[in-house]
Amino acid sequence: MVPLDSAESGLAAAMFEADTASHELGIQIIELGVGHATATMTVTETMVNGHGTTHGGYVFLLADTTFALACNSHGRPAVAARADIRYLRPTRAGDILTAHATERTRFGRNGIYDVTVSTTQGTPIAEFRGDSRITTHR
Amino acid sequence: MVPLDSAESGLAAAMFEADTASHELGIQIIELGVGHATATMTVTETMVNGHGTTHGGYVFLLADTTFALACNSHGRPAVAARADIRYLRPTRAGDILTAHATERTRFGRNGIYDVTVSTTQGTPIAEFRGDSRITTHR
Amino acid sequence: MVPLDSAESGLAAAMFEADTASHELGIQIIELGVGHATATMTVTETMVNGHGTTHGGYVFLLADTTFALACNSHGRPAVAARADIRYLRPTRAGDILTAHATERTRFGRNGIYDVTVSTTQGTPIAEFRGDSRITTHR
Amino acid sequence: MVPLDSAESGLAAAMFEADTASHELGIQIIELGVGHATATMTVTETMVNGHGTTHGGYVFLLADTTFALACNSHGRPAVAARADIRYLRPTRAGDILTAHATERTRFGRNGIYDVTVSTTQGTPIAEFRGDSRITTHR
Repeated sequence: MVPLDSAESGLAAAMFEADTASHELGIQIIELGVGHATATMTVTETMVNGHGTTHGGYVFLLADTTFALACNSHGRPAVAARADIRYLRPTRAGDILTAHATERTRFGRNGIYDVTVSTTQGTPIAEFRGDSRITTHR
Repeated sequence: MVPLDSAESGLAAAMFEADTASHELGIQIIELGVGHATATMTVTETMVNGHGTTHGGYVFLLADTTFALACNSHGRPAVAARADIRYLRPTRAGDILTAHATERTRFGRNGIYDVTVSTTQGTPIAEFRGDSRITTHR
Repeated sequence: MVPLDSAESGLAAAMFEADTASHELGIQIIELGVGHATATMTVTETMVNGHGTTHGGYVFLLADTTFALACNSHGRPAVAARADIRYLRPTRAGDILTAHATERTRFGRNGIYDVTVSTTQGTPIAEFRGDSRITTHR
Repeated sequence: MVPLDSAESGLAAAMFEADTASHELGIQIIELGVGHATATMTVTETMVNGHGTTHGGYVFLLADTTFALACNSHGRPAVAARADIRYLRPTRAGDILTAHATERTRFGRNGIYDVTVSTTQGTPIAEFRGDSRITTHR
């Protein structure tokens, strides 16, 4: 059960329930509210690349799921238009990653969200910024 | 066996052999040469998000693996420093995605690579740009 | 007079004629066609920053003007939604910079354009990517 | 005279004093401290593009100068490695723009800085993110 802090976030929670990709990877929601979300994932042996570190695609994927939660938390369906990620430090199998998404701004049907991915010690390992776009008119 | 067009690309091919994450997802190399690479992946039911479309994280992951092949094709180990992706069109389970990476420029220990992800019909579905950095001195 | 290679580019040429900012900086069009453009600017003493090199903002500005030419070359007014720039090498007062914009893709009302800024020797000094959006329906 | 809140910021203030480009445009520092800075600029008639709005390059330039102040505020010279900007709303000649830069993170010789450009009413008109790199060893 997702810990909601508002009724509007119900759409985001419902979308997460239907998000097979995130569930398959063991991503769990820590908190979800209007304009923000936190989710966590444990790096498994199958998420490791040829350098022996977490494949950047999986770090991105956790950040992207958390961004999707935050940008859908206003009660209107939104999708990612684009995103970027900067890798600060490598992680490894067994590490628990936590992504925290906050809303920077909204304008028209667009939004900008910042996501920081950290270790359990609170060390940031990646910084992500995503642009969302509302897909339907109410 | 990876179709190599040069000896320098051997490092990139060896790294791909050790890339558990890419293998688990069924990513295959189509071609690999100095400064470029092409790889393919079939979208599975477990890669779908709450919108019923391919999770953006998996599109990114395919592009990122192809970028890694291209930026390691010069015979010196390199990692992703950052990357960005723009989503052009949604895809679905069963779609076969092909990513083609080309080298835009190199300067010092840095490189910039462009990756286009397309469907089998050749329709582009995402545009990715990644910045690499060589990690060790020879 | 702008060297046009098509009638559609007339809108872009007309917009450039009205672009006070670009004219004040001495930016000149070298070529302009459907989906591409080349423009040039000489770095002046008033474009130098505290490091004694060209202020990154002026390198960006030349790239941005060239991007605007290319994305308006289809005969429908478009604006920049966002852009990014990577600085490869510093330049100095007196250097002549040339920006070449090419169209990567278009989808819906959106477009993605790549701009390379180079010296007269052909050395790339910055790589820019811009996202355009058509503002009006025909 | 720059309002400093720490001795380390002296390098940033000195670099700004030598920044001809910023002075020519009338950019002024509002505040400068370790990891943050605020600067302001009035849009002039010569900063307007062919749409009759502020040329995006000048919005970028103000943000870039403010980013440079913040990333040089630790007492070690740093330069911009790359930057991106999202345009939220157009502005016009006569508008007073204020850019506020904050430090998101630092790792090794790298830093990430977020800059919001706003009108005097506090409405955000652009969101900028820049990556810095320290150029010299102490």
